[in-house]
Amino acid sequence: MIEHPQFSPEPWAVRETELDLDMLAQTESVFALSNGHIGLRGNLDEGEPNGLPGTYLNSFYELTALPSSEPAYGVPQAGQSVVNVTNGKLIRLLVVDEPFDVRYGELLAHERVLDLRAGVLRRTADWRSPAGASVRVNSTRLVSFVQRAVAAVCYEVTPLEGPLRVVLQSELVANEKLPDGRGDPRDALGVTAPLEPLLERSRDLGALLVHRTVKSDLVMAAAMDHLVEGPEETETRSECSGDEARVMFTTNLEAGETLRLVKVIGYGWSSQRSEQAVADQVRGATLEALDTGWEGLLAGQRAYLDDFWERADVEIEGDQRLQCAVRTSMFHCLQAGARAEKRAIPAKGLTGTGYDGHTFWDTESFVLQLLTYTAPEAARDALEWRHSTLQLARERAEELGQSGAAFPWRTIRGQECSAYWPAGIVAFHVNADIADAAIRYLAAAEDPEFERGIAVELLTETARLWCSLGHQSESGRFTIDGVTGPDEYSAVADNNIYTNLMAQRNLRAAADLAERIGDRAAELGVEAEEIARWRRSADAMAVPYDPELEVHSQAERFTRHARWDFAATPADSYPLFLHYPYFDLYRKQVVKQADLVLAMHLCGDAFSEEEKARNFAYYEALTVRDSSLSACTQAVLAAEVGHLDLAFDYFGEAALIDLVDIEHNTRDGLHLAALAGAWIAAVAGFGGMRDHDGTLRFKPRLPPELTALSFGLCYRGRRLRVRVGPEQATYTLTAGEPLEVEHHSERLTLSAGQEQTRAIPPAPQREAPMQPAGREPERRGRPG
Amino acid sequence: MIEHPQFSPEPWAVRETELDLDMLAQTESVFALSNGHIGLRGNLDEGEPNGLPGTYLNSFYELTALPSSEPAYGVPQAGQSVVNVTNGKLIRLLVVDEPFDVRYGELLAHERVLDLRAGVLRRTADWRSPAGASVRVNSTRLVSFVQRAVAAVCYEVTPLEGPLRVVLQSELVANEKLPDGRGDPRDALGVTAPLEPLLERSRDLGALLVHRTVKSDLVMAAAMDHLVEGPEETETRSECSGDEARVMFTTNLEAGETLRLVKVIGYGWSSQRSEQAVADQVRGATLEALDTGWEGLLAGQRAYLDDFWERADVEIEGDQRLQCAVRTSMFHCLQAGARAEKRAIPAKGLTGTGYDGHTFWDTESFVLQLLTYTAPEAARDALEWRHSTLQLARERAEELGQSGAAFPWRTIRGQECSAYWPAGIVAFHVNADIADAAIRYLAAAEDPEFERGIAVELLTETARLWCSLGHQSESGRFTIDGVTGPDEYSAVADNNIYTNLMAQRNLRAAADLAERIGDRAAELGVEAEEIARWRRSADAMAVPYDPELEVHSQAERFTRHARWDFAATPADSYPLFLHYPYFDLYRKQVVKQADLVLAMHLCGDAFSEEEKARNFAYYEALTVRDSSLSACTQAVLAAEVGHLDLAFDYFGEAALIDLVDIEHNTRDGLHLAALAGAWIAAVAGFGGMRDHDGTLRFKPRLPPELTALSFGLCYRGRRLRVRVGPEQATYTLTAGEPLEVEHHSERLTLSAGQEQTRAIPPAPQREAPMQPAGREPERRGRPG
Repeated sequence: MIEHPQFSPEPWAVRETELDLDMLAQTESVFALSNGHIGLRGNLDEGEPNGLPGTYLNSFYELTALPSSEPAYGVPQAGQSVVNVTNGKLIRLLVVDEPFDVRYGELLAHERVLDLRAGVLRRTADWRSPAGASVRVNSTRLVSFVQRAVAAVCYEVTPLEGPLRVVLQSELVANEKLPDGRGDPRDALGVTAPLEPLLERSRDLGALLVHRTVKSDLVMAAAMDHLVEGPEETETRSECSGDEARVMFTTNLEAGETLRLVKVIGYGWSSQRSEQAVADQVRGATLEALDTGWEGLLAGQRAYLDDFWERADVEIEGDQRLQCAVRTSMFHCLQAGARAEKRAIPAKGLTGTGYDGHTFWDTESFVLQLLTYTAPEAARDALEWRHSTLQLARERAEELGQSGAAFPWRTIRGQECSAYWPAGIVAFHVNADIADAAIRYLAAAEDPEFERGIAVELLTETARLWCSLGHQSESGRFTIDGVTGPDEYSAVADNNIYTNLMAQRNLRAAADLAERIGDRAAELGVEAEEIARWRRSADAMAVPYDPELEVHSQAERFTRHARWDFAATPADSYPLFLHYPYFDLYRKQVVKQADLVLAMHLCGDAFSEEEKARNFAYYEALTVRDSSLSACTQAVLAAEVGHLDLAFDYFGEAALIDLVDIEHNTRDGLHLAALAGAWIAAVAGFGGMRDHDGTLRFKPRLPPELTALSFGLCYRGRRLRVRVGPEQATYTLTAGEPLEVEHHSERLTLSAGQEQTRAIPPAPQREAPMQPAGREPERRGRPG
Repeated sequence: MIEHPQFSPEPWAVRETELDLDMLAQTESVFALSNGHIGLRGNLDEGEPNGLPGTYLNSFYELTALPSSEPAYGVPQAGQSVVNVTNGKLIRLLVVDEPFDVRYGELLAHERVLDLRAGVLRRTADWRSPAGASVRVNSTRLVSFVQRAVAAVCYEVTPLEGPLRVVLQSELVANEKLPDGRGDPRDALGVTAPLEPLLERSRDLGALLVHRTVKSDLVMAAAMDHLVEGPEETETRSECSGDEARVMFTTNLEAGETLRLVKVIGYGWSSQRSEQAVADQVRGATLEALDTGWEGLLAGQRAYLDDFWERADVEIEGDQRLQCAVRTSMFHCLQAGARAEKRAIPAKGLTGTGYDGHTFWDTESFVLQLLTYTAPEAARDALEWRHSTLQLARERAEELGQSGAAFPWRTIRGQECSAYWPAGIVAFHVNADIADAAIRYLAAAEDPEFERGIAVELLTETARLWCSLGHQSESGRFTIDGVTGPDEYSAVADNNIYTNLMAQRNLRAAADLAERIGDRAAELGVEAEEIARWRRSADAMAVPYDPELEVHSQAERFTRHARWDFAATPADSYPLFLHYPYFDLYRKQVVKQADLVLAMHLCGDAFSEEEKARNFAYYEALTVRDSSLSACTQAVLAAEVGHLDLAFDYFGEAALIDLVDIEHNTRDGLHLAALAGAWIAAVAGFGGMRDHDGTLRFKPRLPPELTALSFGLCYRGRRLRVRVGPEQATYTLTAGEPLEVEHHSERLTLSAGQEQTRAIPPAPQREAPMQPAGREPERRGRPG
């Protein structure tokens, strides 16, 4: 694990004080800006050098082939891949005819700051050209949370010695050249030159380009317009053709004199509207942004974030680095979901092309935990998106010979894009994960419209899926055979415990809801017998247990398999799936990521405290964390069973995943679910928050490395703040009607403005669990 | 099942009396000629119309990409595909400037006969051209068993009314246009225009073309030469360029006057020799063939086959159609293996491009049963080929993290070409199948050189593989987890019973052999401790059994899975894998092909008679026979447990697989293993032959539909003939030293020339087993 030494931890910012070209791709991901609709990687203004140029529009994709040498029924042959759309953030600078390029001349200073309260990326560069002319460049970039279709850049150039002739070329460029892939299965399949020009316009200081994708036939438009401040004799000129539009500003600057350009960029796309309609839409967006002005855009951004941080901020006392990391994590999750508005939240948000821009269960199981309690409308939107694909999921279930709905393992638009079925199509738990997110949102938001409109359909159709996937075995147990749980180092197993427990939760919630709003359920054809069947199946659900070892089994026969030979596995053979065949991973006891341990979090009421402790110790020794989705869950359970030091290590791993590039692929985009996991580790781990049955319960316990932790939650129209100290916890309802919560099983009634403080009982003392040799998390912040 | 009405059953021939263009591709497979080195599909002499033009050279392949959208460690990215090489069997005819093409004009008569004793394909066509000129065409084609590099055609054209001007164009054509694939996973990936011209020559009546494959860099040459008889003024001319060589014969024929052309064709290829060397080799082959002459070639062919039929013929009395089918089956198996000479025997022989021309376990497990007892030198050659790939298999085992050798699931040259690992790479039983074939050959052939040179290496390295694949579980059982047995509707299962029992056999045989020839074993590093480990593992081998159902379980948990809903499966949804996703097949009780039932044949000594009967009944009800490899094994076990009617039905299904096109894909090539299965059903089924421990045992029993069955065997230098009648069986040693065999557990000592006749005990009476609804075999030859 190599830390980026340039990221200095600040409470409200990620600051990079030197430019390291080897880390360019990683920093482009960390410095990505997004509002969930538009995503801009943190590419340098001048476009080059870059790690991966990236501009994305949520759900704008191209169809790709999913080649297979042995085609199989039900395995899709067409995929979807996120498209790098027209780059509007490009501003090239010529200093006395030499292009500003950090690889040439001398970079005297370079600083970039991602400001988590302002919601902008700031950059300052002092550069001396090969010919000796030196300038300062300041740029500030934002993607507006308020004006969804708008991004903007304020770009200033000032000669350090003068006078100098400078030219700014502000551009829109489509079909940028992209780097080649590396053959890692987590990469994107990649789409080269996916955009076909339809329309181009330029006038005054504005221009726009409209393109369509060739196969998916989606139309997108990018427009730009400018405000310029500088010497009066500044000349301007605009031009456009096909894949490029350019507005140029030419002037002579004295030393200390500044040419300041505000560039507003509008984006839009549609699968139905004409190119003219989409062109007009983005032109309108840029005009509105010009009207708002740079200061107005900044102010809107600040206000939006002030509100977010006011209700949601997590304060970490005792570790400045993790304070910074947690806020950065939350900021990126907010960016991914804020204005996605009934579109998917991809595993990497809109920060890169990793996993082809696909959305997985990560969204519902991790990101929506955070959004439900901090930006509930974004959580609702994400679930509305899932619901909007329900008909596709129904058709997919039918194609697979099942009832109800089978949501895709990975997708952009809703169609299954997983070509490796043992760890894709049969990871049916995604359906229970969606149901679980709906249940959670419903419990936290009290949203009757959602309940009657969306939740009942999602829960009913997923419950139906489980009934057809499972069967009553001779022993009377409800058995779900041949599926894959979260641990992708076991696959196609019988009675995966996570899947079964989540299905049980799904079935029961569907039954409860169908009884609560019988009229709506009846419209979906749910009758008493079906509800009874859901309950019978849930009650009879198989939960594999190994009585000899006295632990639950991740799936049937899992604990009978040979243990992976960790001692014989070299450190550089991780992640294992890049160095060992799947078959050998599948048939041995080795866990890629929390599976049974995740079940102990999300279905914690299905296990006793002692079972949790024993299971945790057993699976901890098998879990290699080859997925970024694991550490946060291990943090939560480690905290619950009393291993607070270990929980702190895992918390750090989740929070620093991208700042430290722990998985070595932050270049492809951020690990959003792991970042959400930093919040989960804090709130569900050290805050001990659980929401199994509609009551908020807390069992807070601070790790010795921290002096305090505080976090805010939105809950049923209320705002709640919990502050955890070493000895006691304080609960404050900052707004809303009184609320009942639990503190270490003691029921508290909170009223607005009234603090309640309770002592924290000591953690149980248990022997520290072992990890596989060489896979211990990095020890953070304490001796040994 | 649509029978080809044109195939009339004759004892020693397959005769087609009308040309049905819709069945052209199927008949091209059935009428294919081969000697194991060269394969010619039964394409019409004039090339068009065709179903699939095909000329193949054993092991001559091109590299293909095995594309994957989600690449995985250990899954190959390069495959091998059989190449349609230069077509030398082409003879085009112009009748008064109109091309002879059966689609035009009027086909007055058309007959083709595959003569199983002469080893030739004969054709007669009477044709009237659109302009009204009528001719008779006779052609006879052979691929020489004696001169391995040679094929030949005798082509005669005779005006039915005259005089007529005719032109014969005898050609070599490379890179023929092939039809498009259909997306069936059993298809070939296909290689278009794989041959790059290197050299061309023509002189007098001869010509040759030399090509190389672009990626695999193999050089092949085809040469032709001619003898012509006809009117004196016949003009000849030859030409060649790149992909085509042509020798033309122009003449005027009176009515009844014949132009007779003997075309000899030579083929050769090399991965090492130069194009000149290969060119010279094929030129030499054609000269030698010219020297032998047409009558000489015919005589050699007849003598080779006379010897084969003398030692191996299976006589079926009471069903003429099956008599024809069994001999045809044996003929094609002989063709595939006769002169393969240390090259692979592909699943389709050299009769088509199905499965890309790959070799699977089919060869060792099915085809070599037949060849071992009827053409033992061909069986030995096939095993020598496997042995020649041992180093590749060692490297593959290492790549997969295993010891010993892991032979490929499918290959041409020895490298793994299976891209779908759950039913490919982990079907490790292929290694035990190879070992089993070596054990069988060794027992039947008494070949000390083979034992010390090849068998000990094959058995040792495969035994080592099993030791590393399996592990000693807590219960003390030796467990092999996560593998796939013959039944491809279950995969990645623990303790597949077939795999385990065959591995047990492999381990024990390796131990026995290592003890017998300790010096050779020591050279391979085998010490006493390793032998002891093989025995311990074999003795502790897990054999899953379900005590509640009182049947063996095909794998752990198999009998706990839901049963496939056969009642809800429409008849047109077979084969299931084209209509249902693998995951649903894998997790349910449905059997594609005999797996446990095959174990009861090949490891019959591991089951009691009652177990066999119960197991057979249980699995019969689950087996859909979506693979052509199933029926013969079901025949063998049905016969053993007393269901002789049923055995007869399965015998018919195996024997008629291609004549009736039961699988609807005979067009892609013959199902060699199923054809070998016809012999297996006769000899191991009704003949009741078993060879578990080096003693030939017979438990013959005739089905009521037959009046007698007789078959010949080669065994330890002896020739044996067994004749089975309804009441008694007669054993005759036709040549060689005395031999002990068993008849229904009674030991007999046979001496040359002396018949021994024994009564056949009545079959046990058992309730007829049920097949899945709609999957009953066709009832043959008796009421109801």
